[in-house]
Amino acid sequence: MAGFNVYEFYEYLNRSGAWARLDAGDPDIPPPQPVLEVLRREAGRLGYTGASGLPELRERIAELHGVDAREVIVVPGAKAAIAALVHSSSTLGLVAPYWPGYQVAARLFSKRVVVTNASMREEWRPSLEAVYSLARMAGMVVVNYPNNPTGAILEPRVFRELVEAVAVDAGAVLVSDEAYRDIVFDGSRVVAAEVQVENVVSVYSFSKTFSVPGLRVGYAVGDPGLLGRIRRFIEATYTCVPVPAQLAALKALELLDEATERARRVYGERVKALEGLVPREVFSFVRPRGAFYAFLRIETGADGVELAWRAARRGVGVFPGVAFGGEKYKDYVRVSLTSPVHVLAKAVRVLAEEACNAVSGGRGCW
Amino acid sequence: MAGFNVYEFYEYLNRSGAWARLDAGDPDIPPPQPVLEVLRREAGRLGYTGASGLPELRERIAELHGVDAREVIVVPGAKAAIAALVHSSSTLGLVAPYWPGYQVAARLFSKRVVVTNASMREEWRPSLEAVYSLARMAGMVVVNYPNNPTGAILEPRVFRELVEAVAVDAGAVLVSDEAYRDIVFDGSRVVAAEVQVENVVSVYSFSKTFSVPGLRVGYAVGDPGLLGRIRRFIEATYTCVPVPAQLAALKALELLDEATERARRVYGERVKALEGLVPREVFSFVRPRGAFYAFLRIETGADGVELAWRAARRGVGVFPGVAFGGEKYKDYVRVSLTSPVHVLAKAVRVLAEEACNAVSGGRGCW
Repeated sequence: MAGFNVYEFYEYLNRSGAWARLDAGDPDIPPPQPVLEVLRREAGRLGYTGASGLPELRERIAELHGVDAREVIVVPGAKAAIAALVHSSSTLGLVAPYWPGYQVAARLFSKRVVVTNASMREEWRPSLEAVYSLARMAGMVVVNYPNNPTGAILEPRVFRELVEAVAVDAGAVLVSDEAYRDIVFDGSRVVAAEVQVENVVSVYSFSKTFSVPGLRVGYAVGDPGLLGRIRRFIEATYTCVPVPAQLAALKALELLDEATERARRVYGERVKALEGLVPREVFSFVRPRGAFYAFLRIETGADGVELAWRAARRGVGVFPGVAFGGEKYKDYVRVSLTSPVHVLAKAVRVLAEEACNAVSGGRGCW
Repeated sequence: MAGFNVYEFYEYLNRSGAWARLDAGDPDIPPPQPVLEVLRREAGRLGYTGASGLPELRERIAELHGVDAREVIVVPGAKAAIAALVHSSSTLGLVAPYWPGYQVAARLFSKRVVVTNASMREEWRPSLEAVYSLARMAGMVVVNYPNNPTGAILEPRVFRELVEAVAVDAGAVLVSDEAYRDIVFDGSRVVAAEVQVENVVSVYSFSKTFSVPGLRVGYAVGDPGLLGRIRRFIEATYTCVPVPAQLAALKALELLDEATERARRVYGERVKALEGLVPREVFSFVRPRGAFYAFLRIETGADGVELAWRAARRGVGVFPGVAFGGEKYKDYVRVSLTSPVHVLAKAVRVLAEEACNAVSGGRGCW
């Protein structure tokens, strides 16, 4: 992220009171009331509990995925599970563009990272050959579908082939970050650990589907040996997930179908709206098929970091592409669809104006 | 911990339904109602927040310690701050007997550990010379007063000298684990970061004073450079402490004096009772001056791990001494004073009987 100071940027957005926060991944759909009721009712359960999670929650998750409860661990946020696995790796393989958190963990733990780049032309889907080679080189590969930042998904058949290419053929560890698993607009859920358990971990977050990012609860399903690495990491660094949060997660799973339906509808409508809002002479993008982001390529020649700062000064937060894989993405910005359509419309107009102003000395371009 | 499987041991205690859980550090005083009320009222605040903590909480903590808010970070449990600092160390210096969590983190992050042993004869207080030498060897030293497992405290004057010996004279990092800071029976609170900020971090937990171990909230005060290491670790592995937990912590600080007074009274009475309950021909110990543990030396010749298992089979959980510094402490067990006196009385009787049975083929010894 040469030339982009993320702290300074966030601080500016917070301090200046931006009216469109399309920079973060904080869902704007309210969390389900029954989940909040559980948090209120169980607030007093503040003792220690086991590092792997409450048995009733683990069993419910196991049932959901058709695995054994020993193949499930509850975690204090998906990030904790991912960080634990990154810590346990020797070399990490990533498919760019990728969520910056993988690199943050790799840097903290001084891990070597090898990257294969997906291309916009291929709708941000990497070839199986590229992922297989990455797995042979790296020993551990993290994939993320539906993808942050592109919204790409893999067809279930292709996803199954990818799981097998990494975990069986290359004999590497596959970490499947499934934070956006439920949010697909024209496809179906894919769960890596349902394809194959050995060498595979599917990491899930309650944050996105249920709009509870500050609750810090998620789970991982898969190879018990790999879950053991996660458990040891959590024991050493965190202890245990609060019982009220786990009971809230259990309630959330009861509401999975309706929360999924709602998230797909709300974010799906915004994707549709976005297609009508974005002037194609200014930005090109692949229609997101899942998650709630669009990865816009700037066609005016403006730089993504400069555009992010220009937009920020007009009250619109977006995240520059370099954060998702370096200089290769300097012509991109990521837009989070976490605001209503009328806000998106105004924000996209500001973005387009600034993408032109940046290269025309402020005279716009259409 | 040769020969002691902590998972198997906990699982046995949980499964068998032990009637006296003197093995854990889970306080039995109920948490303050106003803290629970805040958790209930603020349960819906589930968005992301900054990785350093809410400004109002940081400022309140800064005021409490007479430091700047930049010298404060809110953490998801004291353990997270300690693990982050251990991760950032090259070699770690410990004073045995010590809380096993330091070793767990050091093992996870493959850190070399050097140890100096305090002696029971010196009431478990290490000499300044020994701690200074440790700091010169290790570069980072963790101390913990009031101490788990011994209940030892240092006089404020001695503590100040220790801070200066490590952080100034030896130029090493001092991590002062102050989880039991408030719980002293005949002394006063000591806060390392109030003595000296540079090279020093004081880590505090809300868990013990306020009986909220499952809430996972604590804070660290001290050298901003060291707090930066903690922040980077939390960002990479956890994201942010839930807002309701932080607001509960803010409320807890309003109740600090009464919670402190209550904890000192309740655990202090149990310490006093323990002195009358423990047969000195079976166990010797130094009267704890803080925290809520007693570290009993077994005088019958029985082994601590064997005694812990024998007691467990009679429904009494205690923790074997080897967990707190290896074979040197094989003749010890740690007893948590987290049950009422009438339970302690029965449990100590069982412990004493088993300490005799272990060496007399079940015939007892008095």
